[in-house]
This record gives sequence, structure tokens and C-alpha cells, in this order.
Amino acid sequence: MQYQPASSHSAAIIGASGYVGAELSRLVQQHPALSLFGCYVSEHSSDAGTLLSDLYPQYAHCLKIPLQGLTDNEKSSIKHQADTVFLCTEHNISVALAPEFLEAGLKVIDLSGGFRLDAVEDYPPFYGFEHKQAHWLRQAVYGLAEWYPHEIAEAQLVAVPGCYPTASLMALLPLKKAGLLKSSKVIINAVSGVTGAGRKASLATQGAELSLQAYGLFEHRHTPEITQQLQHEVLFTPHLAQFPRGILATLYAELNDDTSDTDLTSAYQCYAEQPLVRFKKLARPAIKDVVQQPFVDIGWHRQGNQLIVLSAIDNLLKGAASQAIQCINLQLGLPVEEGLL
Amino acid sequence: MQYQPASSHSAAIIGASGYVGAELSRLVQQHPALSLFGCYVSEHSSDAGTLLSDLYPQYAHCLKIPLQGLTDNEKSSIKHQADTVFLCTEHNISVALAPEFLEAGLKVIDLSGGFRLDAVEDYPPFYGFEHKQAHWLRQAVYGLAEWYPHEIAEAQLVAVPGCYPTASLMALLPLKKAGLLKSSKVIINAVSGVTGAGRKASLATQGAELSLQAYGLFEHRHTPEITQQLQHEVLFTPHLAQFPRGILATLYAELNDDTSDTDLTSAYQCYAEQPLVRFKKLARPAIKDVVQQPFVDIGWHRQGNQLIVLSAIDNLLKGAASQAIQCINLQLGLPVEEGLL
Amino acid sequence: MQYQPASSHSAAIIGASGYVGAELSRLVQQHPALSLFGCYVSEHSSDAGTLLSDLYPQYAHCLKIPLQGLTDNEKSSIKHQADTVFLCTEHNISVALAPEFLEAGLKVIDLSGGFRLDAVEDYPPFYGFEHKQAHWLRQAVYGLAEWYPHEIAEAQLVAVPGCYPTASLMALLPLKKAGLLKSSKVIINAVSGVTGAGRKASLATQGAELSLQAYGLFEHRHTPEITQQLQHEVLFTPHLAQFPRGILATLYAELNDDTSDTDLTSAYQCYAEQPLVRFKKLARPAIKDVVQQPFVDIGWHRQGNQLIVLSAIDNLLKGAASQAIQCINLQLGLPVEEGLL
Amino acid sequence: MQYQPASSHSAAIIGASGYVGAELSRLVQQHPALSLFGCYVSEHSSDAGTLLSDLYPQYAHCLKIPLQGLTDNEKSSIKHQADTVFLCTEHNISVALAPEFLEAGLKVIDLSGGFRLDAVEDYPPFYGFEHKQAHWLRQAVYGLAEWYPHEIAEAQLVAVPGCYPTASLMALLPLKKAGLLKSSKVIINAVSGVTGAGRKASLATQGAELSLQAYGLFEHRHTPEITQQLQHEVLFTPHLAQFPRGILATLYAELNDDTSDTDLTSAYQCYAEQPLVRFKKLARPAIKDVVQQPFVDIGWHRQGNQLIVLSAIDNLLKGAASQAIQCINLQLGLPVEEGLL
Repeated sequence: MQYQPASSHSAAIIGASGYVGAELSRLVQQHPALSLFGCYVSEHSSDAGTLLSDLYPQYAHCLKIPLQGLTDNEKSSIKHQADTVFLCTEHNISVALAPEFLEAGLKVIDLSGGFRLDAVEDYPPFYGFEHKQAHWLRQAVYGLAEWYPHEIAEAQLVAVPGCYPTASLMALLPLKKAGLLKSSKVIINAVSGVTGAGRKASLATQGAELSLQAYGLFEHRHTPEITQQLQHEVLFTPHLAQFPRGILATLYAELNDDTSDTDLTSAYQCYAEQPLVRFKKLARPAIKDVVQQPFVDIGWHRQGNQLIVLSAIDNLLKGAASQAIQCINLQLGLPVEEGLL
Repeated sequence: MQYQPASSHSAAIIGASGYVGAELSRLVQQHPALSLFGCYVSEHSSDAGTLLSDLYPQYAHCLKIPLQGLTDNEKSSIKHQADTVFLCTEHNISVALAPEFLEAGLKVIDLSGGFRLDAVEDYPPFYGFEHKQAHWLRQAVYGLAEWYPHEIAEAQLVAVPGCYPTASLMALLPLKKAGLLKSSKVIINAVSGVTGAGRKASLATQGAELSLQAYGLFEHRHTPEITQQLQHEVLFTPHLAQFPRGILATLYAELNDDTSDTDLTSAYQCYAEQPLVRFKKLARPAIKDVVQQPFVDIGWHRQGNQLIVLSAIDNLLKGAASQAIQCINLQLGLPVEEGLL
Repeated sequence: MQYQPASSHSAAIIGASGYVGAELSRLVQQHPALSLFGCYVSEHSSDAGTLLSDLYPQYAHCLKIPLQGLTDNEKSSIKHQADTVFLCTEHNISVALAPEFLEAGLKVIDLSGGFRLDAVEDYPPFYGFEHKQAHWLRQAVYGLAEWYPHEIAEAQLVAVPGCYPTASLMALLPLKKAGLLKSSKVIINAVSGVTGAGRKASLATQGAELSLQAYGLFEHRHTPEITQQLQHEVLFTPHLAQFPRGILATLYAELNDDTSDTDLTSAYQCYAEQPLVRFKKLARPAIKDVVQQPFVDIGWHRQGNQLIVLSAIDNLLKGAASQAIQCINLQLGLPVEEGLL
Repeated sequence: MQYQPASSHSAAIIGASGYVGAELSRLVQQHPALSLFGCYVSEHSSDAGTLLSDLYPQYAHCLKIPLQGLTDNEKSSIKHQADTVFLCTEHNISVALAPEFLEAGLKVIDLSGGFRLDAVEDYPPFYGFEHKQAHWLRQAVYGLAEWYPHEIAEAQLVAVPGCYPTASLMALLPLKKAGLLKSSKVIINAVSGVTGAGRKASLATQGAELSLQAYGLFEHRHTPEITQQLQHEVLFTPHLAQFPRGILATLYAELNDDTSDTDLTSAYQCYAEQPLVRFKKLARPAIKDVVQQPFVDIGWHRQGNQLIVLSAIDNLLKGAASQAIQCINLQLGLPVEEGLL
């Protein structure tokens, strides 16, 4: 695909009022090759008609953009005039909305979980709704940008990975692909900031209720996402912390016998030229080092066959919005980090 | 009044599911001279029927107490069998509930703002409702325990002070009573933890929304409360911080000419025998030093006629629940700190 | 052993100026059966001569106790007049100090790691010093209060467990003793507040440097402590968080085939009568629920043979000072929770 | 002054290992018109020889820059080859270093307090050292970028304002210059994150010691800085909070009689075209909205003659490093926000 001249590619953002939507709006807004077609919320949302910068004073200088209700008229104008739709909507809303934009010929980059799993059968148990878009689910490409650049470049529908799966898969895929993982289950202990729960009133995320606590034991919907992508059994346990942003995943894996340090180094060599992966052998990534940054920080430590990989991201960026930008960069033939550094 | 034998005095707590209600339930529960008659919530609350310890796992060892819906039957049994009712309800609910318990002869200790202001006319502008209990409002004694011990001891209805007023008045009343304050307005800059906003879902108190921000400028309802009690004009500005508990008030006052250090020392001498006031001339009270403690920490600093007083409390304890216990201690003729240290 | 009349048992605290020492001083001070003989710091410490309450304004009401330099004279008076010495000193200092008090006939309760490991050979690799007290190391009883009450009651020298080992062992020992653990290694992912690093100036614990980060991978000295006590291989990975107090351990264990829920319930039944263990099958313990409390909160979750146990403590209390009080309570024939609730 | 072609202007940073130095290194590094000549620390610093990115893993992608000891050789090469020196050194070190670079004809932008006050006599009482550079102190231009653009553009020596003074003066100067302030003292209540204390080991800034506490009452060195610049008496009280970055100043001022809202609006109209000032009449700036941003957020609220102005900045950016960039932009004839958005 040819390089597109600046601002020629027009992107609409639906569900722009959430934490991810606002980050994405900012990134699209400042992207040299994208123009922001518009920011949309549900027609019935009380946010419709307000400025995005009223919800996010931190972006008062750049997001004086009206949040528009997604009426039929607006949908129609998006279909006729925009090139790509980013969906930052609830899972089931994404599934409902995506097909009409796809059928109108637009590209859709979905940041929900609506098109991440392998099959419609996975949706009722993990997402609690019937998924009626088996066709589009099959078409969807998993948007882990460093791993599927060609597929993403060609895809009409991209399912941007979940935040925990991004932190986990970026750490584990090099090992899996290199055949270094023993068949035993990988344990993923992850801690997330509270923006991961979304921008909404909830007693569980009231400031005074937060400290550090596990949740979703054995049943979090990111478990099948990781398993399907990794093709390896994992035990994933998320924890909610009191800080606003960031995920730290501590991953415990067993290596095949005779795995050398050199094998590990070679495996992670896949990231050598990746501008948004900061890999360092003995690094101990920290939440503070990735907050408000589009990177994933990775380090590994071993003792015999026992491997620990540490992986940190900003859940709203590499775990959502900046990875979505990586995907559209790939589609536009741009460097993957365009507009992100 | 005679000392009451242990557990002879029976107290019911209405509105027990909130942050203040839970602290108060714990304090009553462990108080040597009180027995907890019962913990109540609104008849229609979804918390009715659950254990208080299910809402507050930190008190799993001591608050396995059912939250009962406040039905007519329950009200009747409180009236016939309990001695004191603590109201931890919304302001207007307190105003509605207090009279029937008072008329049944019970003591009422109200932790809301329903009986704190001087006159019913103050309620519509600051609390947004018509106050129809002028009689009881006149009867109410302001429960600032160190200042009105005799009045509280005799009162049938006690209005426990607000959290900000407690921090402010404890710092300023010694100066006012000693005649050291110039007539110019006192500036009160205060910062509170998020429990001050109550236990409820709200976007403004979502963990990710918190940092440090002023609110209620010129119009917070604690302004008239402080002014009326202090009989001095104040400019009170609260701020919401991201920590769970605690208030730090930084108070700026002008001293009358010729006020000596000795005058100041004498003024604060009123606290010399008060077990729950930790006064120290040049102290710089910190939030961490008062959290989960029933104390108010006070220090002063001056330069010429300019005085700064620093005052810190736990908003849920000295700012609410433990001060309510001080009030009932006074009523029972017990040491003011009974059950608190 | 006979019950001791109140205040008859005299305890000296050496290393009282640290976070653990201060908590312990407070607990001894308010304990109905103990009298605080004195609080000591190194003879050369700049803290010598100051009041403990000057270092800990939160305890201004109860710890107006001078920190005395531990001169030879002071040692001598301790030996002649005190009954028990609590050591809150550095590991090697404890090893150096304990024998002389033991030989003088006192009981010693050591809160350092100086007497926790099985053999002197374990010390150079994990603690970096030669341990020359093999005799006393053999005499030392591991002070995990719920597990070794009789041994502790009889011991002259008690080694109070480390904070992470306490959280870990309290969760795992019931399973191990009941024979439910498969031989595969147990993974312990733990997160601690910054008081765990001790009260000292250090760039790594400067407020702005903290967020969430793993440390001590594969080499933390609590690994051999846990392994030796559990008699089971573990992989222990600590993390430093930005909150002040508390540890949350997330433990991943494999159960033997055919382990039923009933087996698990039976195993944890050992805690049914323990007043300082708050066990609940599906509980998800949170840091905020244990801070400033002497409890360990434990819950378990399973899926097939995979078990996750969650365990939370206050690192300064159940992880140190309050557990030391449990030990002395056992020695004095008092209820284990005496002075703690 | 003419626009300089990209990368033609070469800047050395001395004291680059601190929090401010690192931010400034990043900003210079990514600035389109600057080239980073080198990053320096004291010859004897243990940081000499390490990479800046080793101290700041969050900047691992952009600051793989060696910290060089500032030997005589290095000084000489800076003098001969660099155009501007940024000093992020201790106050007295700046005073010692600046003259030799100035005399060599370089521009010096000093981020310490070494050249901020009016006269050498102010230094012993507020900075604790004799200031022997009266000549250069007179030459120094106060680098409050929005207020003294022409003077800064022409200056050889710029004294970048302190963090608290920046937050305070940006809020107050419009009022003062418009003649709206009554002569009574302005009260400045300010709260700062812990990076304000600098990157160094210190017990007072250990994570567990932080909460919210006033300090420097009546004697902070930013008081004379504000007073001299504002030409108005102020009472400035700083507080240390537990968050890493950001300052919120709440300013209490009295307006002259007959000051209208229009007068206030007109006064702040001076910022209408300023890209790094986000002014909004009733705004309530929050720390979270300015962190990691080069803006100052300002809002005002009044009641009669009483005015409250709220002002928030990132102490490391608008309070130091990004304001230093504004200054060099002015000197190079670039837009003031060049390289900052």
C-alpha cells in the first residue's frame, strides 16, 4: 500500500467519551496522516452535545471536539465520507455496529472484545451474549501489531487485543513461537490500574474501595483470548489496584529442557527492530515507566527451567488506543509508531 | 450522672451501611458501656438483610451484624427498647426521623447536618430542603465534645459537627474565645480524603478521577456551620484528594495587635487536659498521623500578627463517629475517650 | 505456665525506632499483662535521646518514651531486671545480641531473620554474613503462632517469621499438613507496601520512585525460609508497591488428584477457632482490609486441581509486631490475641 | 532574531541526572531546533558514566545518553562548541558555574534559584550561602516566559522561575498588572508532589512518610521570589503530598472595590493567545489534568471582593523544564511552545 498524504485518511471514533475513546481521539487528532472525522457517543448518552475536553480537562488544549449522538444521519455521513471507524463501544454494541460499516466498505478497528475470540460459541459463556456475526468474526484479524502486521494491513476488520492479553502475549509469544515452552500451563499474575474498569460510576471503583485485590478468578474473559492466541494453556489472575493506569504482568513459565540463555535471547530477538517494544534481558519493568507511553516493557529472569517474564504496559495505550493506531498505521503503510512518539 | 454498668445502655444505629455508620457500629460494638441494639438501613435498601461485615471485610471479625430494614415494626421496637438512636442518614432523612424517636423519649445523636445550623431558614439555601422541625432544631445541642460537654450531657438531641467544621473549630475556638482574633475573615483551606464523599457510586469519586481539586467554592454548607459556631467570618475552601481518609485544614488568621506568644499558649491551654486533642505549638500535623485515630492534631505558627493554625483529623472518626461516641460518653457520665483508645 | 498478673512481665525492645519497633512498642505499651521496660537503639544512633513519639507523631498520645542508647550499662540493667527482650534489629545485630540476653536467662523474641533458617550454612548465601551461633540457632523456635503454640510457649528464643513467609505459610500449611499438595512447586506472587523496606533514607523507596515492580527474583531470603518451613518447593516473587503497608500474596498450587472441596474445607478447619485468622472460602482478601489490623485474611478458589489461595496481612503487624505479641502471649499462657483486638 | 535551522543550536545540560534534568534532556532531545550537546553531572557523582536511561527507564527509548562527569576538559569543550548551557544544579553550584560559561560567551539558562532574587543580600537568609556574583545577578532575566518574552529573548542569563512561583505568578500577575489587587496580603496555599524534593534519598520523602503536610511555614525561599516579582506582599505556605508530580495553588486575594467581573475577564485576557496557558473563568484545575503536560491551568471564582484563583502545573515541566524550553524558544525566535506539544 502506498503512503497516504497527510490528513487524507479520515477516521470516526464511536464511543469516544470513555477512557480509551478519549486517548484514541487525542492520538488521531495529533496524527500526521489522519484526520478526525468525528467523535460519537450513543444517541441517548447524556454526554452527547458536550465537548470531549469538558470530560477530559487534561486535553482542553487539543480536544475541543463535540461528542455527537450517533443518529442514523450521522451513521450515514460516516459511511459516505469516513474511511475507518474505530469502535470503543461495549462488546455487544461493537458486534451490532461493525457490520453496517463494514458492509458500507469502511475499515473497522474494534477496541472491544466483540471480535477477539475464535468462534461465536465462545461468546455466551465469557461475554454473556449471543454473537450473531459469525461471518465477520471469521474475517476479523487479531490486532497484535508486532505479530500480525501483514494480516492487519490487509484486514477490513481488526480486533484490537485486550489490555491483559497484550501484556501477556507480547511476553509469551516469542517463547511459544520458538518452541521453548514446556506444555505445562503458564501462570499469569497481573495487576491493573482502575481505568481498566472504564469511565463509569461504580461502588467497586470508588477511590476509597480500592487497594489491591484479585478478581475474576478462573473466569475472566481474557483467559480464552490469551489461550486461543497463544495456543497454550494459561492460568490468568487479574488484580485491581488503586493507581489510575498501567498493567504489570508477572508470568511464570516452564522451559523445555536444554533451553539455553541463548535460545531465550534469540527468541526475543524478534523485537530487536520494534520501536514500541523495550526489551531488556534482566529488566524489571515498573508501572511508572510505561504510564502515558505506547511501549511494552519486557524483561526475563530464569533459574533452571523456571522462567519469569515481566511485562508492563499502559492499559489505555499499548493495551488499547495506541495499539489501535499501530493497526491503522500498518493499514496505511506507515511506520508502526507513526504519531505515537 | 452516675456511671452506667457495662452494656446497660442500648444504642441503635440508623444508616449503618455508610462509611460513618460502619465506623460507629464498630465503636459501639467494642464500647464497654454500650450495647448495640441493632444496625438499620432504609427499608428499601439493597443492603437490607446483608451483614455489615460483608460490606466491610476489614471488620469481618467484629461486625457480623445484620443490616435490618427500618420497618415500622423495627422502629417500634427501637422506641420501646433502645436508649439512644444514632442517625447516620442523609440530612433530610435525619430531620424526618429524629422527632419520632425524640418524642418517644429516646436520646438522638444525629451525625448528619440536619440539626447543625441555627435556624430553619438556613436549610433551603445550603441543604436544598425545607426544614420543618424548628422546635427540635432549637433543642439541638452542637456536639463539639471538648467545647460543650455540659450541654451535650443534658441534651436529648445532639447534632454532631461536620468533618470540616470539627477540624476548623477545634483550631479556632480557643483563639476566638480568648479574644485574639482580629475581625478580618479567617481563611480555611482544607483537603479531604474521598470517604468524605460517602459510600456510593459516583463518577466524580471513581479512583481514576481523583487527584487534588478544589470544590464547593464559596458555597459549601460547612461555611455557615463554621461561621455560626465561631461567630466569626470565614472563607472556607474544601479540596478533594485521592487518599481514602483524613482532613488537613490550613487556617490563616490575623491576630489582634499585641497578641503575644504567651497569649496563644494560654488560649490553647484549654486543651491541656483533653485526651483526644494532641496540641503542640510548632507541630505540623499530617494526614497519616491521624488516620484511624480519634484525635485532632493541632499546631500553630506565627509571624507578627499573621497566624497559621494546622489541624488534622480522621474525617470518619473525630470528624464523625468517634466524636459521636464522645457525645454519648458525656451523656453517660463516662470519660470522654471511653471506648476510643 | 501460670497466668501472670497484669504488668508483671517486663519487656525491653531493642531497635525500637524502626517501623516494626514502633508498632511493637505501642502494642507492648497497651498490653494488659506487659510492662515496657524500655526502648533502645544503637548507642551511636542519632535517634538516641529522642522520644519515640517525635519519630512517630501518630503515636504522640501513647509513645512519649525516650529512645535510649544501648550502652553496656543499659544492657546490664535489662539483663538484671527485664524478663523478655524483643529484638527489632538488623539480622546480624540480632545474632550478635541475642546470646548475651539468653545466657543471662532472659527470653528473646527476635523479629529479624537472624534465627529463622535451619542451619548456619544458610546464612552466608542469603544474608551475607557468617552465623556463629549454631547452638542458639538450633534452640530457636519458629514463631508462627497458630502453628507452633506449644513450642513457642516453651522456647527461650523465638524467631518471629518474616512478613512474606507469614502470609505464605498461613495460606499453605493447612494444605501441606493435610497432604493435599501435589509435589510440584508452589508459586507465590506477593506485593508489599513500602514500610517493608524499613525506615531509612533510600532512593529506591523515595515516593516518586515507587509504583509496582518485582524485585529479588529467585534470590529473596524469604524463599529458603518458606521452603524450610513448608517442606515444599516454592517459587517466591516479591513486588514493591507504592502503598505504605500491607502484603497481598497470590499463591498458585496444584492439588493432588481426587482432592475434594470438602478436603480443602477440612484442611482450613484448623483455623476455625483462631481469633486472628479470618478465613472464608471464596474470599478475595484486599490490602485495605488488613492494614493496621493483626489478622491474616485467607480465601481459596479452585478449578480442577488448580488451586489459588489469596492471603493478606499487615506486614508490620501479623507480619512482625503483632505476631511477636502472639508469641509472648503464648509464653505467658494468655489468649493468643491478648492486647491485640 | 531569525529562525534557526533545525538542530543548529547546541545545548549542554549540567545536572542532568535529577528529575528536572532528565525531563529537560528529553525535551531538548526531541526539540526540532535543538541538538543535545551533552548531559553532565558532577565529576564525582556516582552517576557519571551511566546512561541517563538507566536512571530513568521510562525514557529508555530516547535517553540512551551517557552522563558525563563535568571535568575541566568537558567544560572547555562546552565553552568552545555549545551555544547554551542549562544548569539544573544546586543553587550554589549554579552560582559558581554560570559565570565561566557566560564569560565564554554562552547563553546560560539556570533552573536553580541561584539568580532569581533581586539582590545578593537576599541569599544568605533564604539560601544559606553568600552570593558573590552581584554583576551577573543584575544581568539575570527572570524567565517567566509569558511575561518577559522580550527580556528573555535578549538575555544572556535567564533565571527560570521556581515551581511554586510559576504557579503563583501566572495566577496573580494579570491581576496585579491590571491594578485589581487590594494592598492586603495575598495568601497562597500550595500543595506539591514529591518530585519537588528532588531525586535523592531522604527519610522525609520515603514513600511511607508521605501523606499531606505543610512545611517551610513563613520561611520558604519561594516567598521572596514571589514577592519581588509580584511587587505585592504574599503569605505562601507549601505542603508536601504523596503524589509524584504536580502543584495545585489555591490563592486568596482581595479585589479593589468596584472591580467587576469584566475587569477580571479583561485582566486574564492577556493569556488569550498564549498556547501554554489554559485559562477558564470557573475552572477548577486538578493535579491530574496537568501532570506530564507543559500547561498552567488557571480558573477564578469570586464573591464580592474576595477572589480565589486556582492554578495547577506540573512542577517538573511548567515549573521547571518546559518553561526553560519556552525561554530558549524565545531566544531563538521560535514559537514559545516549540517542541512542547
